[in-house]
Amino acid sequence: MGDKPLELVGIGNAIVDVLSRTDDDFLKTHGVTKGAMTLIDAARAEALYEAMGPGIEVSGGSLANATAGFAALGGRAAYIGKVKNDQLGRVFAHDLRSTGVRFTTPMANDGDATARCLVLVTPDGQRSMNTYLGACVQLSEADVDPDLIAAARVVYLEGYLWDPPEAKKAFRKAMALAHEGGGEVALTLSDAFCVERWRNEFRDLVDHHVDILFANEAELLSLFETDDFTAAIAALHGRVKIAAITRSEQGSVILHDGAAHEIAAEPVARVVDATGAGDLYSAGFLYGYTQGLDLPMAGRIASICAAEVISHYGARPESDLRNLVERALAA
Amino acid sequence: MGDKPLELVGIGNAIVDVLSRTDDDFLKTHGVTKGAMTLIDAARAEALYEAMGPGIEVSGGSLANATAGFAALGGRAAYIGKVKNDQLGRVFAHDLRSTGVRFTTPMANDGDATARCLVLVTPDGQRSMNTYLGACVQLSEADVDPDLIAAARVVYLEGYLWDPPEAKKAFRKAMALAHEGGGEVALTLSDAFCVERWRNEFRDLVDHHVDILFANEAELLSLFETDDFTAAIAALHGRVKIAAITRSEQGSVILHDGAAHEIAAEPVARVVDATGAGDLYSAGFLYGYTQGLDLPMAGRIASICAAEVISHYGARPESDLRNLVERALAA
Repeated sequence: MGDKPLELVGIGNAIVDVLSRTDDDFLKTHGVTKGAMTLIDAARAEALYEAMGPGIEVSGGSLANATAGFAALGGRAAYIGKVKNDQLGRVFAHDLRSTGVRFTTPMANDGDATARCLVLVTPDGQRSMNTYLGACVQLSEADVDPDLIAAARVVYLEGYLWDPPEAKKAFRKAMALAHEGGGEVALTLSDAFCVERWRNEFRDLVDHHVDILFANEAELLSLFETDDFTAAIAALHGRVKIAAITRSEQGSVILHDGAAHEIAAEPVARVVDATGAGDLYSAGFLYGYTQGLDLPMAGRIASICAAEVISHYGARPESDLRNLVERALAA
Repeated sequence: MGDKPLELVGIGNAIVDVLSRTDDDFLKTHGVTKGAMTLIDAARAEALYEAMGPGIEVSGGSLANATAGFAALGGRAAYIGKVKNDQLGRVFAHDLRSTGVRFTTPMANDGDATARCLVLVTPDGQRSMNTYLGACVQLSEADVDPDLIAAARVVYLEGYLWDPPEAKKAFRKAMALAHEGGGEVALTLSDAFCVERWRNEFRDLVDHHVDILFANEAELLSLFETDDFTAAIAALHGRVKIAAITRSEQGSVILHDGAAHEIAAEPVARVVDATGAGDLYSAGFLYGYTQGLDLPMAGRIASICAAEVISHYGARPESDLRNLVERALAA
């Protein structure tokens, strides 16, 4: 991959999370699909916000979480995503930049507000996400800075970008530029319902454009329309250079070159909030990978990062991730 | 006190907290006074925000925290305070109303943004607060709804209200209306530096207008310009109907009618963030008091509420406070 000034460029929907504790009854009463990410419009966002309890606002967005985690580990990273120039947009930009991530995408000066995700956390630690895309629909090809993409060893994209129509074009442009410049393309399938919305296009991406694939079990099953995990793993064989499939407390499987590496999950005293588990897993994996570590070691770092983020509220690391990983690997 | 539809009306500076973990070096480098609340202007707020790490936005404001805690215990409460009609102002209103607090103060449509407090939390759990008052300076006598004040058994005010000049008039109006309607006036001294700024006026308030006084040790010492706690307690004697003086892990002392009740602090596994300890102590105390419980029992509830809020980030209760208190009292 050669020497590049950046190890990672993440591209995604730039979102501020509004976290609130709730119970299963609330989810039922308000028709929220448990554990999934559901797109909602402005009216639904307002009604749901009014009904839910007090919130905590934390910068989120799947790829922004992953990029922040990558930087927290010591990696050199940039992020591309669209916020509006409003209070929450400035909060998002501050939080990302203060982790060391380069974030220069111009803010929107008009149109909808910065995107918000109403994250309802049940006592079992499961999170049910309700996303109002707001300013994210303004992300376009013009925001994909060719110099930034050319500077990165890995360009990492989220499946969620397939939802706002213009972002899809930005996505395709970024993939093409990455490969032209000798970089690699990583993709997360994001969410099982997102895979359902875009299955054929995601299959095409996986077959022809993606080097490194991240998915959880439900997303992989949805991609291949099966309920048999072994069959889904077999179907994936040979389609991408590397695939990392996460299975919650059952750990993860990393596929590469015909081999499957099983990685144990890092033990957690109590799962407080599952938000960001997949994002931080991929951050840890890509950090190990771009540092030239072997895949089981990259998987181990991934598991440690995921364990940190699910042990507290919010999808960004709270501990010194670099220190945490160093200590865990030394033990 | 008779039958009143509300048990408590809280009046205070309406503020959104921006919590960030930091270390003592950062406080030194940026000239932040540890453990205190310092007023900052817009330029300083911007510079400090830029320098500090990623934040978590949570509704705060001393009296808003206390009122939210009171409602979480099952009390009937309203709040008066000024936010702007911007994203953070709407977040503040949502969070307060969703705890059951009646909050009808009109939002400002122009002028400065909703107030923000940059709360820097060090590893020892101490918080250093840097407040940009923003829209709070627009709180005025017109916002003190006479019907609301007349409806309340206790009107609770914060010393911080002495900082924005118009709020001081609102404060005086609320006190006068409370006493006219047969209600009582409670005051928290807020912060030792705030006492230093307004010592003579606060002494006058304590001597002539306040029925129930809340202060921590440092605030009380500052009020009477002494470094001898026993002398300060003696100086307080006979000035107010009830005084509750908090001393962190040493518990609290409740003075009433010549007697002093010593209340033990509730044990906490780890102090994560001291923000809100005094606010929730007063919430618990006033809840017990307005329920007609004896003072040591009110002090016990106060200690339980304070212990809950310092065991996590943010100044609003995260657990079901009512349930927590019931379980603790039954044990």
